[in-house]
Order: sequence, then C-alpha cells, then structure tokens
Amino acid sequence: MAAPPIKFGILGCAEIARKVSRAISLSPNSTLHAVGSRSHEKAAKFAADNGFPDSAKVYGSYEAVLDDPDVDAVYVPLPTSLHLKWAVLAAQKKKHLLLEKPVAINAREFDQIVAACESSGVQFMDGTMWMHHPRTAKMKEFLCDSSRFGDLKAVHCCFTFAAEKEFLENDIRVKPDLDALGALGDVGWYCTRSILWAADFELPKTALALRGTVKNSSGVILACSAFLQWEDGKSATFHCSFLANLTMDLTVVGTNGTLKFQDFVIPFEQDKASFSTAVKSGFTELVTGWDPKPSDHTVMTDLPQEALMVKEFSRLVGSIKYDGAKPEKKWPTLSRKTQLVLDAVKASIDKGYETVEIIS
Amino acid sequence: MAAPPIKFGILGCAEIARKVSRAISLSPNSTLHAVGSRSHEKAAKFAADNGFPDSAKVYGSYEAVLDDPDVDAVYVPLPTSLHLKWAVLAAQKKKHLLLEKPVAINAREFDQIVAACESSGVQFMDGTMWMHHPRTAKMKEFLCDSSRFGDLKAVHCCFTFAAEKEFLENDIRVKPDLDALGALGDVGWYCTRSILWAADFELPKTALALRGTVKNSSGVILACSAFLQWEDGKSATFHCSFLANLTMDLTVVGTNGTLKFQDFVIPFEQDKASFSTAVKSGFTELVTGWDPKPSDHTVMTDLPQEALMVKEFSRLVGSIKYDGAKPEKKWPTLSRKTQLVLDAVKASIDKGYETVEIIS
Repeated sequence: MAAPPIKFGILGCAEIARKVSRAISLSPNSTLHAVGSRSHEKAAKFAADNGFPDSAKVYGSYEAVLDDPDVDAVYVPLPTSLHLKWAVLAAQKKKHLLLEKPVAINAREFDQIVAACESSGVQFMDGTMWMHHPRTAKMKEFLCDSSRFGDLKAVHCCFTFAAEKEFLENDIRVKPDLDALGALGDVGWYCTRSILWAADFELPKTALALRGTVKNSSGVILACSAFLQWEDGKSATFHCSFLANLTMDLTVVGTNGTLKFQDFVIPFEQDKASFSTAVKSGFTELVTGWDPKPSDHTVMTDLPQEALMVKEFSRLVGSIKYDGAKPEKKWPTLSRKTQLVLDAVKASIDKGYETVEIIS
Repeated sequence: MAAPPIKFGILGCAEIARKVSRAISLSPNSTLHAVGSRSHEKAAKFAADNGFPDSAKVYGSYEAVLDDPDVDAVYVPLPTSLHLKWAVLAAQKKKHLLLEKPVAINAREFDQIVAACESSGVQFMDGTMWMHHPRTAKMKEFLCDSSRFGDLKAVHCCFTFAAEKEFLENDIRVKPDLDALGALGDVGWYCTRSILWAADFELPKTALALRGTVKNSSGVILACSAFLQWEDGKSATFHCSFLANLTMDLTVVGTNGTLKFQDFVIPFEQDKASFSTAVKSGFTELVTGWDPKPSDHTVMTDLPQEALMVKEFSRLVGSIKYDGAKPEKKWPTLSRKTQLVLDAVKASIDKGYETVEIIS
C-alpha cells in the first residue's frame, strides 16, 4: 500500500507559490496541507484560489505553519533575505525544506541552513525545477557519452527577461533588503546552475565578472555577465539580465558534440521539451553545407517539471519518514556549489572586476 | 546589352579557391580567366578540376596573373602573411581585389593594402561570404526594427570546429609564419564580424581576452574567448576554437526581441537558410510555458552565398570599369573594423588579459 502523501505547508503567498501549489496538487505523493501569511485574509484567499482542499489549514503567520505538527515539509518562497531565519527555524521544527532560489544571500548563510537541516535530519532541496524534467536526464546521457559528446570545452548561457516598469520599481528582486543579489540571484542562479550541470558539477577554479554590470539606484544588480574557468582549461560565459527580451539559451560544446536548448528553465510547452544535439559535425564537399547536421529531440513528460520536483522531494521525505532513510545530500551540495559561484561573481564585481578564486 | 563579365585571376590553389572558383562560374557577371601557382603543373590541374574554360590561362607564378592585361580582378586566398605583398602588388597592377580573411596580420598592414587600392582606384572586398546571403539582409531588417528588436543589449557568438590531427600539425592556419593569428584570425574573424554586424558596425570601446587561450608549441592560437564592450553598455562575448565540435551560433538579444541562428557562416543547406526571432517573449499564466514563442523563418536563395559575394563584387567592379563609378568604401571599412577588433583581442592576450581600448 502506498504511504500517505507528504503534507506541505507554504510560507507566504508569493506569485511563484501559486505554481508550486499546483505542483503539490499534481504530484501523486504530496498534498497541500497549510498556508501561512502575515495576513490571515491573504492566506485564506491564496488557499481558496490555489486548489487547497477544504481541510487545509490557513494561518495568519509563518510560525503557525511551522508549529502545525501535521506539516511534514514546507515550501519557502520568501524573499532571499528572509531565508536564513525561516529556513533554519523550519529545520529546527523538523520540517523538510523546499527552498526557493537563490537559497541564501551567500554561502556562509546557506551553510547555516544546511547545518540546521543536518542537525534535524530533514531533507533540503532548492526550487530549481528544470533539474527534474526528463529532458534534463536525457541531455545528461548525451553529455556523459564520450563518443558522442567527448570532453567539455565551452559553455555559454544567456537568461534575460524584459522586466516591466512595475517590476523594476517594486519587485522584491530589485530591493536591497529583500533580494540583494538582484538579477544575479534570480536569472543568474539558473545560468550558474546550468553551467555547473554541464560541467558535471565540478566547481570552476575562478570567476571573473565582466565589466558593465547594471545596477539600480539602490545598488541591486539588474544585468551582469561573467566568465568562469576550470582547472583543465574549459570555460563558460553567461549573461543575465532583467533588461532584455526573454531569452533562455544554453549551448554546451564538447570535443565531439554540441548540445543546445533555448528554453532551459521554462520549456516552451508544459508537456514536452526539445533539445538539439550535434555529433562530429562536418561540412559537405566544398563546404557548401553541413554533413551531418544537428538533430532535434523531443522528450514528453506526464507531469510538468515543477510537479516532478515536488514528487522527487516528497519521495525523499517519504523515505526518511517511513523507511528511516537518511536525507539525500546531493541536493544541498548542488545548491551550495551554485551559491559559491554566485558569491564569486558578486565578489568579482565588488572588487572592480578582479578574477576571484572559488574555494569550496 | 549586359556588360561583359568580370575576368578573374586566382592566386594560388588553396582549398577555399575551389569553392570560390565555382562561385565565379555560377555568378552571371564573372568568369574564370586565369589561375597562377608557384607550380605550373599544380595550376593546370587546378584549372582542369575546377571548371575553368578551355580558354583560361594557366600560369606558373602569381606575378604572371597580375601581369595578364585581361585580368580585371584577382581572388587572393594566400596565407595571411603573404597578403600585404600580393594584395598591394595586385592593386598596383590595377587589379580589383577579393581578399580572403583575415585580411592582414594587423590593421597597420591592412591600411597599406587599402592605400594601394585607393591609389589605384580598385575595388576591395574581403571573402566573408555570409554577408551576402539574403538571410543576412532579412535578419538585418529584424535588427533594425525598433518595435520588434529594440536596442541591442548582448551578443554571443561561438564558432568552433574540431580540427583533425593533420590540420593541427600542418595547416597554414597553425603556422606562425603563415597565419600567425591562428583560430582568432580564422574562426574568430567570423565571430568578430558577426558581432560587429549585429552592432550595426559600431566599434566596441574595449576588448578583453578571457583567460585560457590555447596555443600550439609555436605560439599560434588554437582557441580563445573574448569580451567586447561598447560605450553605451552593450556587450558581446565570443569563443573561437579549432578544438571543439563544429558549432556556429550567433545570439543577439535586444530590449524587445531576440535573433538566433546556428549556422551563421555556412548555412546547413546551400539553397536556403533559417533563423529564429522572438518578439516580446513572455510566459503563459503560472509560467508553465512561453507565449509568444520564438518563430522560425526560412530564406531561399537562387545562388549560394559565395556566388552572391562574387556577383556583388563583380557588379561593383563593372560599375567602375564600365560606368566610371568610384570604389564602394563600405567593404574595406568593414574589413578594417573587423581587423581592429582582432588586433585588440590579440593585444589583450599578449598583455596578459588586460582590457584594451579599440581606437579607430
């Protein structure tokens, strides 16, 4: 008989929490159990609008969610500056933790979150949804195939979107006291994670922010670029921005093959996603065309990637709760590496575009 | 009545000269008239193998081609180190000049070539074929449309190919005395040109080579990356290499739109080429997909891009020869800007990855 579903509490009514609430509903091994907001009314409206069952609890504070003994796990979409306080408190209250990205303001704060999770034996996972799409596993197979892909040489990632005036004035992601990393913590998180993913999560040796970082009047990053380099010479560049048309490219070039996709964070469509591979690409006679040409691949998914994320998280939580398993360390490890790279890029900007060593 | 076709002489029997010979045959306003090589036998074989008419002249030296009074224009695919000598001599002999890229070892040498062309009143054009594909004009329309594309923010270009062992040991492009710029002069030329093209040929203010340049034992560049920045804050990165799978990406991101193509130098197919545009891209409700999505566009061409290049060059030559027109300055201007950027990237590498100002 299947174990009972993992009961989720949600801290706050962020826009992204609507999508994750739906994901919790869609995932077969989880259920929406509670939502808390500083305003009880707001929490009630959120529950009513987002498919919470009638039995769900509505609280007028975050603490109340953490104090609900029936809550197994919490999803925390609060502004980054609040992560340390609420993630640590959640872990102390023995709640498994699905935390939005960026996971913290810096790796030092993140380490305190991880320490709290370890101390309480709860699972940690960050909210990077695309990691859980079956396309990602399929592409990984390609990157791991030495005959088709070979050795990684270069990665480029671009994630930009054109924020509206309202966003640029009021969104938490442009407020120094809420999300001090700005575009670097938001879209840059995805660039960094995708580059690390392509490099099999080997940390780069150095990071160099590239000149031209755009900041708002409060000093929050609105656009920046960076160059990462590994010990063996492979390298990556990325550009992240709130100031240019929505673009979401990842290009991974190896000695034998090339992988490309143009919707790496949010697939163009919910139920399927594509990528392009090229293997030992060459030219026709007289170089008037390509032979072979790259080929496109489509991967279907029965659940959207965010529901697959919740499903995997809940599976791990269930293993701990019902089978006495230990938390899976892979997820906090990947989060920490991503944060370390963001920290190094930020440090490079702050030091006037010096090359910064990334030390694990 | 149509003017007689422009008579081409070819200096040397380089591999690329086979493709351009065919282009001269295909172009309606040009004809293959002569080929010269240091070996008469090699020139004769080249003429026989590459569709030269029976009336074509075969010479055992480059000088002889330049001394043939019937030759209107020469195509010069010689190693870069020989460009200064032979391009200047060709211009002095009043031959219009279609010169392979990189046009020179540096802009200073290139300026001598341009001075010789100006002094003789002959047309100059470099051999960057993709500039002449109708796709390029179509994409330019998109970039110039402020409502669809807006202001340019970021460009990324990647041009790599996996050279065979034989190439890495013996090709002229890895020999310091023949093509001292190596991959930067070869594939990097195209990256630089494409970035300039996207920036409407506004020169960047600075160039910074990114660490990790790979050189062979003779000091010739086999792979490198660079970052270019403009006065107004827009920026570009490129990666060029002989050491990774054939990849040929250009991504151009503006405030309103995005342009992408994956075969910018050599289209996948000879008779048509595609590109992708995205305009005011956004997400569906709950950010579970894109709306609108990018769209693909295909442009047909009656002649391959290299024949269109020859056709345009011959049209300009014909205007000078038959109509008393002045040489079109656009082409040497674009070549010079491209060379200036290459020079700056090279200087940045030589100075230990300092930022280098680009001075026109």
